Order: sequence, then structure tokens, then C-alpha cells
Amino acid sequence: MIDRLIERIEILNNPSAVGLDPSPEMMPDDLKRDMYDLFGKTPKAVAEMFVRFNAAIIDRTADIVPAVKPQIAMYERYGLDGISAYLRTVEYASEAGLTVIGDIKRGDVAGTAEAYAAHLSGVDVEGERFDLWKEDAVTINPYLGGDSAAPFLKACKDFDKAVFVLVKTSNAGSGDIQDLRVSASEPCEGREANAPDMTVCARVASLVNEWGKDSVGDRGYSRVGAVVGATHRETGEMLRAMLPHTFFLVPGYGAQGANAGDIRGFFDERGGGAIVNSSRGIIAAWMKEFPNAGAQGAKASGISLDEAGLAARKAAVEMRDRLRGVIR
Amino acid sequence: MIDRLIERIEILNNPSAVGLDPSPEMMPDDLKRDMYDLFGKTPKAVAEMFVRFNAAIIDRTADIVPAVKPQIAMYERYGLDGISAYLRTVEYASEAGLTVIGDIKRGDVAGTAEAYAAHLSGVDVEGERFDLWKEDAVTINPYLGGDSAAPFLKACKDFDKAVFVLVKTSNAGSGDIQDLRVSASEPCEGREANAPDMTVCARVASLVNEWGKDSVGDRGYSRVGAVVGATHRETGEMLRAMLPHTFFLVPGYGAQGANAGDIRGFFDERGGGAIVNSSRGIIAAWMKEFPNAGAQGAKASGISLDEAGLAARKAAVEMRDRLRGVIR
Repeated sequence: MIDRLIERIEILNNPSAVGLDPSPEMMPDDLKRDMYDLFGKTPKAVAEMFVRFNAAIIDRTADIVPAVKPQIAMYERYGLDGISAYLRTVEYASEAGLTVIGDIKRGDVAGTAEAYAAHLSGVDVEGERFDLWKEDAVTINPYLGGDSAAPFLKACKDFDKAVFVLVKTSNAGSGDIQDLRVSASEPCEGREANAPDMTVCARVASLVNEWGKDSVGDRGYSRVGAVVGATHRETGEMLRAMLPHTFFLVPGYGAQGANAGDIRGFFDERGGGAIVNSSRGIIAAWMKEFPNAGAQGAKASGISLDEAGLAARKAAVEMRDRLRGVIR
Repeated sequence: MIDRLIERIEILNNPSAVGLDPSPEMMPDDLKRDMYDLFGKTPKAVAEMFVRFNAAIIDRTADIVPAVKPQIAMYERYGLDGISAYLRTVEYASEAGLTVIGDIKRGDVAGTAEAYAAHLSGVDVEGERFDLWKEDAVTINPYLGGDSAAPFLKACKDFDKAVFVLVKTSNAGSGDIQDLRVSASEPCEGREANAPDMTVCARVASLVNEWGKDSVGDRGYSRVGAVVGATHRETGEMLRAMLPHTFFLVPGYGAQGANAGDIRGFFDERGGGAIVNSSRGIIAAWMKEFPNAGAQGAKASGISLDEAGLAARKAAVEMRDRLRGVIR
């Protein structure tokens, strides 16, 4: 999977992913009205907006971006209809040739983690496998340790998928746990005696390295990637040096505050090894382009889904070109 | 919410929860056959088994146990039909008067965590609130820090719900991150200078204490509980001493290896302050009671749902009585 993603990034010369994290505020007025007319003012109406909106974004970006990252929380919020919208979005993106990274951040004790790993492995019913979730990769949370990751790693191997383990997240509160300094007296494979304290996220990084070392592919990267927030420049550079075979998924670009210059050090020396995600900056780009849409007045409606898609494309091209400028 | 749960535990004199974590192996043959006949050998058939099986367990235990803890992973594994089964199980348990602790272990950056918090807050559509998930409490993962917990804490306050934060999980790999010793040089509120190293899970515990201190209710416990695995006796006792106002959700009892004696120290001196979960030990009790069911032969079928429910009741009574013996 990682090899295919890397190949697609190289062909498009674009190491970026579109975060499909829709919210009602981002929906064009006409779409809203149509869906409320059809389904009433209900969670189902919102979920149906999301499906159509995402399709418009995908239609206008699938030829220039290699991957999408739908954030399942934005769908789960709307209950069963929301989950249905997530599944249909994943399927639509896959059929458009995009790599789909399901941002699900799951993690649980071993037996339960195996159930969650069905996101990658599908599920067996009386000997027949059903691939219900269809993601190419998912994000997972490391707090429960190695045996909680193992079922995902097995699914990656058996079904040619990938995981991205949360190492250092993009939010301000990430430091509460992830930046704690672990006592130098803790034993750690490959660590020298009298080494200085290391942080919890560096320790997670060493586990990620361990978990991935058997699956390094033709392009030099393993199936076990790391989530490293764009908002932490120094940590990103430190982790890049520590993890030569770990592909990075980098959230927090754009709306969350990081710019292209901040993330040069997240890439390897050839400009590879990472994919940068932007959500709002791309999918809500139409709101900047048509600032009066939705307000009372002449442009209160009339933004079509395709105009929203085209605005997303323009923003995706800008992001791509900025990233190209930085990594070349 | 915590006050109501505590009251119900006291009335029933039973600090235990039934883990509704079904799997196909636990389904009686006749139920399997009926559902496969109706829906084919499909994920939907399995999901429909789960709904009926859970209802049978709930029917026979709701008058003696205060709470259930459905593990969403066991349902999510079966895709949309599985999620539907989870939702119907939560609703059925609620209507039977049980407190429902959704074991969802969610956690994400602030804006996204707010979407996940819809599990507790419901979701707003054009000014109307839809309570789609209906859990009374959920479990959350602390790896992303304080701002990732904040939306859940707000939902707890606004809608009288509770959260249980993963502090020390029951699995063997929990030590990989949770037991790392944090350098004594880390500043930490309320900690003395030159205090010894503390573990990551103790540090999480101090955050949990912080997050809950404004919501301590009539019974002395806050809305912000902690998940503390029954399999770690010493850690449980240490955390109990550290967290006088934090209610514990204790998984890992029974099938995961801990017994009643191991967890005395998880309760406060009055025998309160914790609820112990057992999943397989209760819901799969019928398989021990009818060991030949499902095998080729005379008893290959013929176990009714109500027999499975009655076996669960018997196991729940045994667990209750063992816990009573320990905490009195």
C-alpha cells in the first residue's frame, strides 16, 4: 500500500491529502435547502449533504491529489446516517483512484483491537470475507501499547494495507502526555547507557520503528507510518531523523496554523517520506472565494456544488505548488 | 449521572457491569440458523443475532445489575449493520433502566473531539437536538491531552453524563506507554520538589483528577472517571489512593484473569467508588453450562435465547456475590 501511495505521490508530484471533514457550516446554501426539502431538518439530511459535497470535491481533485483523509468523527456525530455517509465517501474516493486514509484513531486491548482491525481486514462470516469499511489505511492510537497495535499490523500484512500511529498530534494539548520526559533509567532497545531523557512521543516513535521494521518496501518505507503534526517543527525534524523508514502523515497544515516552510524537515532529503493533509483550507475554500454567499443579499444562494469543487481544486493546486517549492 | 449510577449500585448492592461484547462464537446454534435463514450468511445476519442475543441477556439481568458496557468495536467490525445493532442495544438497555457505558475509547484534536462528543451531547440540526447515540457515559483515550478531553467534559456538564478516561488498561501491553517512568524533573501541579519519578498513567491520573475536580457530586465522586484494569492490583491500589474523587471502571475481571480478591483495593473504604465489568464470563456463560451445545450430537441445537439469558443471570449473581464478599 505504502509503495503504491508513494508511486502516486511521485506521478502527481504532489505529497498532499485532502481532509474530507465536512461540517454543516461548509455546505452551500442550495445544497442545504435541497437536502432539507428532501429529508427534513434531520441528521439524515446533513449526512446526504456530506456525501454530495464530498463527491463534488473528489470529482475536481482526484486527478491532482493522491489521497484523501476522511475524519470519521465528523460523520459519526450524525449517527447511523453519518456512518453511512462515511462509507459512501470512502467508496466514492476509492473508485476515483484515491488512496483513502481513514482517520479513525482507534485503539483497544488485543481481542477488541482485532475487531477494530476489520477496518483493514474486512470481516469473516462463515468463511466469506466482507470488506465493509474499504479504507486503504487507518490511524491508530498507541496509548494501549504493542498488543493493541498487533492486530492492525497483521491486517496490514495480510491485506496490503497501512496504519499511521499517532506519535505527535497537531493540537496544543498534545504536550500533556506526548511531551513528558521519560526517565533516562527506562530500558529501551537500541538506547545507549546514560542517554538523556526522551519524550513519550519519541518512545512511541521507537515502537513504531520496531513495529515497521519487517515491512520496509521497495521505496524504503514500512507499512507502519506515523502521525506527526505540522505544528511542531522541531519535533517533526527530530522524528524524521529518528525514523528513516517511517512514512509520515502530517496534519495541521493550513487552517491549523502551519505553513509549507515549517514542514520541510518532515520530508526526507529527496523530498519524500511524508504526505501533508489539509482539510478546511481545501474543502471550505469556496467560502473564501465567494465570501458573500450565504449572507442576505444578491449572492445568498447560487453556489453550485461544482463551484465548491472548483474552489477546492484551486486551493489544492496552490497547496501542491507550495509544497513543491519547499521540497524540491 | 455518576450519582445516579452510584445510587443504583447501592440499591442493587452490586458494583458490576455486564460487558455486551458479542461475537459469532457466542451465538446459540438455533439463533444463528434463524438469522442466516432470514438474512443469508451476511454481516447483517450477525448484527441481527447480536441484537436478539443482547436483548435476552438484558431481559434476564436488568433487575440485578446496574449497568452494561457495550464495546463498540464488536459491532463496528460488522460495518453499518453492526453500528445499527450497537445503537439498538444501547436503546434497549436504556429502556430496561440500565446505565449504559459506551466503550468507545475515542479521542482526537479539539475540533474533532467535539464531533465525537456528540455521543454524549447529541447533535444540533438547525436548532433541534438529536440524541443519536444515547450512551450515559463513554470511555475516552487521553493520549491527545487536555484539549482533546475538554469537549467531552463540557458535554458531561451540559447533559449530565460521564466519561471514563483510560488510565491503566487491563492488557499486557499496557505497560509499553502507561508504565513509563516520567522524569522527576517534569513540573506537575501539586507535586513536591524532588518527588520520585512517576509513571505516565499516574500522570494521566493527575490530569483526570484535575478535569473532575469541579464536578464532585453528592456521593463524593466526579463526572470524570478512570478506566483501571483489574489485572493490575498494585497500580489500582496506588491510583485509588491518589484519586479519592474519581470513580473507577474496572475491566479485565473474569475471563481476562483477575479475581474478586485482586480488586478490593480498587474500591474505597466503604466499598464504593468502582464498578467492575465482566463480558465473556457473563454473556458466554451458557457455553459452559451447556458444553455440548453446538457440537455434533444430541445437543447440537436446542439452546434457547432465554436459556442463554438465564445462564448469564446465574453468572451475574455469582459475580455479584463474590464482589459483595470482598467489599463488605
